[in-house]
Amino acid sequence: MMRQAGRFLPEFMELRGKYDFFTRCQTPELASEITVQPVRRFGMDAAILFSDILVIPQAMNIEVQMKPNFGPYLPTPIRDQAGVDRVTMPDVDDALSYVMEAIKLTKEKLEDEIPLIGFAGSPWTLLCYIVQGQGSKTFDKARQFCFTQPEAAHQLLQKITDITIAYLKAKVAAGVDAVQIFDSWGGMLGPDDYQEFSWQYNNQIIEALSAHAPVIIFGKGCWFALPEMAKSNASAIGVDWTCRPQTARKLTGGNITLQGNLDPTRLYSSPTKIKKLVREMIDAFGKDKYIVNLGHGILPDIPLDNAKAFFDAVKEYGS
Amino acid sequence: MMRQAGRFLPEFMELRGKYDFFTRCQTPELASEITVQPVRRFGMDAAILFSDILVIPQAMNIEVQMKPNFGPYLPTPIRDQAGVDRVTMPDVDDALSYVMEAIKLTKEKLEDEIPLIGFAGSPWTLLCYIVQGQGSKTFDKARQFCFTQPEAAHQLLQKITDITIAYLKAKVAAGVDAVQIFDSWGGMLGPDDYQEFSWQYNNQIIEALSAHAPVIIFGKGCWFALPEMAKSNASAIGVDWTCRPQTARKLTGGNITLQGNLDPTRLYSSPTKIKKLVREMIDAFGKDKYIVNLGHGILPDIPLDNAKAFFDAVKEYGS
Repeated sequence: MMRQAGRFLPEFMELRGKYDFFTRCQTPELASEITVQPVRRFGMDAAILFSDILVIPQAMNIEVQMKPNFGPYLPTPIRDQAGVDRVTMPDVDDALSYVMEAIKLTKEKLEDEIPLIGFAGSPWTLLCYIVQGQGSKTFDKARQFCFTQPEAAHQLLQKITDITIAYLKAKVAAGVDAVQIFDSWGGMLGPDDYQEFSWQYNNQIIEALSAHAPVIIFGKGCWFALPEMAKSNASAIGVDWTCRPQTARKLTGGNITLQGNLDPTRLYSSPTKIKKLVREMIDAFGKDKYIVNLGHGILPDIPLDNAKAFFDAVKEYGS
Repeated sequence: MMRQAGRFLPEFMELRGKYDFFTRCQTPELASEITVQPVRRFGMDAAILFSDILVIPQAMNIEVQMKPNFGPYLPTPIRDQAGVDRVTMPDVDDALSYVMEAIKLTKEKLEDEIPLIGFAGSPWTLLCYIVQGQGSKTFDKARQFCFTQPEAAHQLLQKITDITIAYLKAKVAAGVDAVQIFDSWGGMLGPDDYQEFSWQYNNQIIEALSAHAPVIIFGKGCWFALPEMAKSNASAIGVDWTCRPQTARKLTGGNITLQGNLDPTRLYSSPTKIKKLVREMIDAFGKDKYIVNLGHGILPDIPLDNAKAFFDAVKEYGS
């Protein structure tokens, strides 16, 4: 479940009270502990390494703050060629060694019982934060940057892509069993612009990684790109909740594994209703070539019993 | 062009400096002047009455503030049955008489040379603001309200629908030549929830209005509902920029008028590039059964020359 290691869990909130965001990400013992918390409680079929997509810009020497009640804040956003030129290309084994340590510790804790998934943000989604400087309803400054300074934008996207490839390869070498690319803001772009400013970079990552581990690609609002994604070397495609399962199957040709797609706010419904929705979702996707998931990250105020209903419905399915 | 009477125009900014938001909406002389400003400058084929979708909650006795650098703020959001019960049902001719006066004045200024379009928010989109209390990336509280208290939500949606029907009928009686329904946040809902919490109410409005004036329905992010919209009595359907023109034609059966869909941030491109994109867009939609528009509202910092390039490209098309 996307963001399964996180704020809806009381055991996570306890650690959150003691350690700030990047301390949690950068301390292998904490990151691995947080990763296995939801698995201990609910018994999922896979663990997702606790981390954040913004560790990449941080490693590129771009300051990233996590402000309470605000979210990510990048005080010196990049909005011109000079800014792109200043971006440094780190050695990921050095700059992100804490992630690799967290992976090794997590694998030990999991004792090979379930696989571990690592992830990265898509280059476009990272550019959104790096240029906008914070979350946004429209990421208008990020799009303005791409549309007024396309050459600088492409240089930045290529730099992020190169680092991400090295990062995900290092994660696989450290022990993750699969990787997922999150293109959370891909749906801000029209289909042609998505091709130019997002997909070609996602595809580079998929091409570089697919020989090393299964790659899952998820683009929120990217229904229009599903046919293209299905033709790539990705092993699975994440689908958000605005796309009906049958439509997603049709758009992807019916042979690739799909992942998704319950509306995260539907977990506000009663446990009985949640179980019904999960059963209907599995029926609609079909139980083969399918990974049950939400259509985006779980929200912090979802009651534990509601999350439990989601997992129980999956385990009880067909029995 | 959506939001064509607004902040990208210096003549609008002059009035904005003198009068606050709701004074501009509620003073017929100002609203009509603002409405004709872009027509005088660019010579569009239709005027769009300057107003705001939030005049409806205001008329329902729900306080709405427009905060600078923040947007709409509703200090007492409705989140339970008691709140829904407190909503008053106004006589629109009385509570919104200023809109009708603005329409009459605008019609005089336009001297019947071009039609005037009036609009309203969809009941779901208005509920988003009424429940959330402000703009949001996810409108999670609005969705939570619908999913945990569906009966109260449906009562609120029906109240908004009834007022909106009376409001749009009064607008037609006052002189608008067509009406548009803006379902700006319809794309936050999955297809089944859209049907339940948005479309059935939009369709009530379309059914009630279509005998009186052409109705245009626009739902941002609502590509999945295009087939349903095409079966309704709407005269035209607005399309956002994430849906290719050819896909929109296919999803709507090819016979209904479509409107859209340039990415508003694509107006940051150079005038030459904008003209190329507009020509390609018209080619792709086909020049018949088509209304050129943006895929959402124009942004306040778009240069005038760029907006002009958009209009010039339409006028020059085919010549």
